[in-house]
Amino acid sequence: MEAPLKVYKGLEGIYVLESALSLLDTENGKLYYVGYDVEELVAKSSYEEVSYLLLKGKLPTKAELEAFVEKLKGEMQLDEKELETVRLVSKRSSGMDALAAYFVLTGRGLVDDGSPMDQAIRAIGKAGSVLGNVIRIDGGEDAMYPDPSLGVAGNLIYLVTSRKPEPYQIEFLDDILILHAEHGVPASTFGAVVAASTLSDVYSSIVTGIMTLKGPLHGGASEAAYQQFVEIGDPNRVEAWLEKALSERRRVMGFGHRVYKIYDPRAKIVKAMAARAAAIAGGRVKALYEVASRLEEVALTKLAPKGLFPNLDFWTPMVYTAVGIPPNYFTAVFAVSRIVGWVAHVLEYWKDNRLIRPLHLYVGPPAGQKYVPIEERH
Amino acid sequence: MEAPLKVYKGLEGIYVLESALSLLDTENGKLYYVGYDVEELVAKSSYEEVSYLLLKGKLPTKAELEAFVEKLKGEMQLDEKELETVRLVSKRSSGMDALAAYFVLTGRGLVDDGSPMDQAIRAIGKAGSVLGNVIRIDGGEDAMYPDPSLGVAGNLIYLVTSRKPEPYQIEFLDDILILHAEHGVPASTFGAVVAASTLSDVYSSIVTGIMTLKGPLHGGASEAAYQQFVEIGDPNRVEAWLEKALSERRRVMGFGHRVYKIYDPRAKIVKAMAARAAAIAGGRVKALYEVASRLEEVALTKLAPKGLFPNLDFWTPMVYTAVGIPPNYFTAVFAVSRIVGWVAHVLEYWKDNRLIRPLHLYVGPPAGQKYVPIEERH
Repeated sequence: MEAPLKVYKGLEGIYVLESALSLLDTENGKLYYVGYDVEELVAKSSYEEVSYLLLKGKLPTKAELEAFVEKLKGEMQLDEKELETVRLVSKRSSGMDALAAYFVLTGRGLVDDGSPMDQAIRAIGKAGSVLGNVIRIDGGEDAMYPDPSLGVAGNLIYLVTSRKPEPYQIEFLDDILILHAEHGVPASTFGAVVAASTLSDVYSSIVTGIMTLKGPLHGGASEAAYQQFVEIGDPNRVEAWLEKALSERRRVMGFGHRVYKIYDPRAKIVKAMAARAAAIAGGRVKALYEVASRLEEVALTKLAPKGLFPNLDFWTPMVYTAVGIPPNYFTAVFAVSRIVGWVAHVLEYWKDNRLIRPLHLYVGPPAGQKYVPIEERH
Repeated sequence: MEAPLKVYKGLEGIYVLESALSLLDTENGKLYYVGYDVEELVAKSSYEEVSYLLLKGKLPTKAELEAFVEKLKGEMQLDEKELETVRLVSKRSSGMDALAAYFVLTGRGLVDDGSPMDQAIRAIGKAGSVLGNVIRIDGGEDAMYPDPSLGVAGNLIYLVTSRKPEPYQIEFLDDILILHAEHGVPASTFGAVVAASTLSDVYSSIVTGIMTLKGPLHGGASEAAYQQFVEIGDPNRVEAWLEKALSERRRVMGFGHRVYKIYDPRAKIVKAMAARAAAIAGGRVKALYEVASRLEEVALTKLAPKGLFPNLDFWTPMVYTAVGIPPNYFTAVFAVSRIVGWVAHVLEYWKDNRLIRPLHLYVGPPAGQKYVPIEERH
C-alpha cells in the first residue's frame, strides 16, 4: 500500500527558512558567516567579533567592538547570588543539564530585562561563566568569580583549570568557539527556532537548543569520538579495530555529515589545530592525535567512496583536551559557543515570524473504532 | 529577485512524519485518538485509559488498565527528597519554568532508570504531582504529599485546593486532560520529536515541549483568552470591545487554528462543559462564561467568513477556573496533559528514527567578503 502524500521524514533537503547568517558551500567544502570565510575568521577574528557579526549582520568598527565587548564583559560576571544558583544546579545535575537548569531558573529575570538582543548578549556572556563553574564543581572545587578580562575563551579555561591560561590555549579555544558558533539549521538550531516561532522567549529557545544538542547523533559526537580513540588506544590497533567495527556495522564516530559529502571545511581547520596541539601539549593529546590520524587514514579508504569524511567532531577531542576540558563536557562547550547561532537565528526569524506547525500522515486504525466497555475487552 | 528554491516557512502543509496516534478530520470537525472519537473518549474513558491507549496503541483490558494505573500511582508519589526539589525550583521560578526545571534537575535519574516506556509513564505520573505543588507554593502554601488514589486529575485539584475535590471537578479536569492529551504535530510536539531525533532522551524532549508550548501563539492562548474576558468584563461591552479590537487589528484570543478552518471539535466539547461549569459553580465562572458566549456570538459573524472559529483555548478558561486552577497556570496544566502526546510521539518516532536536519536558503552577502582589518573599517 502506498502513502498518498509525501512525508519528508528528517526534513532532508527541505528548506525551512531564509537566513543571512551562514552559507554552507557543500560543493567546494567552504563555510561562510555573513559572507566571510570561516577559515579567515579563525585566523584573524575573535569569538567576540564573530558574535557581533552574527548578531548584527556586519563586522564592527573598533568603537562598536569595544562597546560590545564591554557589555559582554558585564554579562560574564556572576555575582554571589548567581554563583549560588550555579552551586544549586550543580548539586542536582551536571553537564548540559546544569547549564539548561541555570537558564530555566534564571530565565524569568532574563526575559524581563532588556530587549531580545540584550537578552541574547546576556545569555552569551553568562553561558561560559556558568559552564566553567559547573565543571569546577563537578571536579570537586568550589565556584569562583569569572575573569571577564580574559575574554569568553580565556575565562572558560581559567575557571576550569584555576590558572591563567597560556596564550596558545586561549587561541585554540577561541578558534573552536568560532568554528562552532553557527551552522545553519541542524536539529538544535531548528528546535530553537520552532520554540521561538510560538513567540516563546530567547532563553526558552536556548534551553531547547541545549536539550536537542545533547543527542549522540548531534552534539554528542565529539565525546563519542574521544571514547573511540581511547577504546582503540594505540595506532597499531586501528586496522583490527576498524575491521571489527565495520563488520559489526558500528558507526565510526566523527565520520559523515548530513550536509557535507566531502571533507567538512571545519574539520580541515581543526585537524591542523589538533596537530599543533599534539606538538605543543604532548602526552595524552599526542597519543589521542596519533590514534585519530591513523584512524582517519585507514577509515578514509573504506568510507570516502561512500561520501563519509571526518567531520568537526572527529578532530575537536584533541583540542578540547589540550585546553583542559574534560570529555564529558565537550558537548557543553559546543553548546556555549552555539548559543550565538541559536539566538542569532531566533532574532532573525522573529523579524518575519511564522508559527511552525507541520502535519503528520495518519497511519493508524480507521476512524470510528467502537469503544467496547472494558469488561467486554479481551 | 526570486528565490530559486521553495522555502516552506512555518512548514504549513508539509508532512513531517507518519503517526498512528491521532487523526484530525478537518473536514468533518472530528478528532480521533488511535481511531476512537475523542468525544466518545471524553464521555466514557479516563485520562489514565487514554494515556494507555496513546502509549500502547490499543485500549487496555481490565487487568492491563489496573496494572498500568498501579504503576502510574507509584510514579505520582513524591518522596521528601522530591518535594525538596519542588520547593527549590519553586523558590527561583514558577509556572512552566518550574515544571521544566524539575525535569531538567531530575532527568538524569529518570533516564538511568527503566526503559523509555517506563520513563514516559514516570514523567506522566510526576508531572501533575509536581505542578500541583508548584501551584501550592506559588500561592504561599507548603508542598504536600500527593494522593495518587484520586487519579491524575483529582490529585492535581487536591494539591491545588488542599481539599478532596468534588466528583464533578474531577470529571471536568479529567475531560480537559483527555482533550489536551494529543493533537498531531503542533510546534511543541514537533520540537519534542526534533530533540528526540538526535537520540537525546525522553525528558529532554519533554523539556523542549514545555519550552515550546510556552509561547502565546501556542499553549499560552488560553490564559490570554481568560485575560481578554476579564478585560471585557461584561457581556454588554462585547460589541464595543470587538469593534475596537478589530479596528486595531488585534487578534481575538482563542479564535482561529492553523489546521481547523471549521469549529474545533475539542472546542465544541469544552463549550458544553463551560456551560455546565457556569451553571454548577456560578460566580466568577458564570461571569466569564457570559462574556465568552456573547463574544463568540458577535465575533463569529465577523470571523467565521475568514475561517476563524473558536478553538479549544477559547472555552477552557471557564473549566479551569471551576476546578481551581489559577489563570497563570492554565498553560502548565495543558503541558501536564500533553506530556502523553509528546512521549507517545517520541516512542513512536524512535521505532524508525531519522535525524531531523532541514536546510536554510542563504540570503546574505555574497560569499568571499573581504576581511578588512578593524582599524580600516568605518
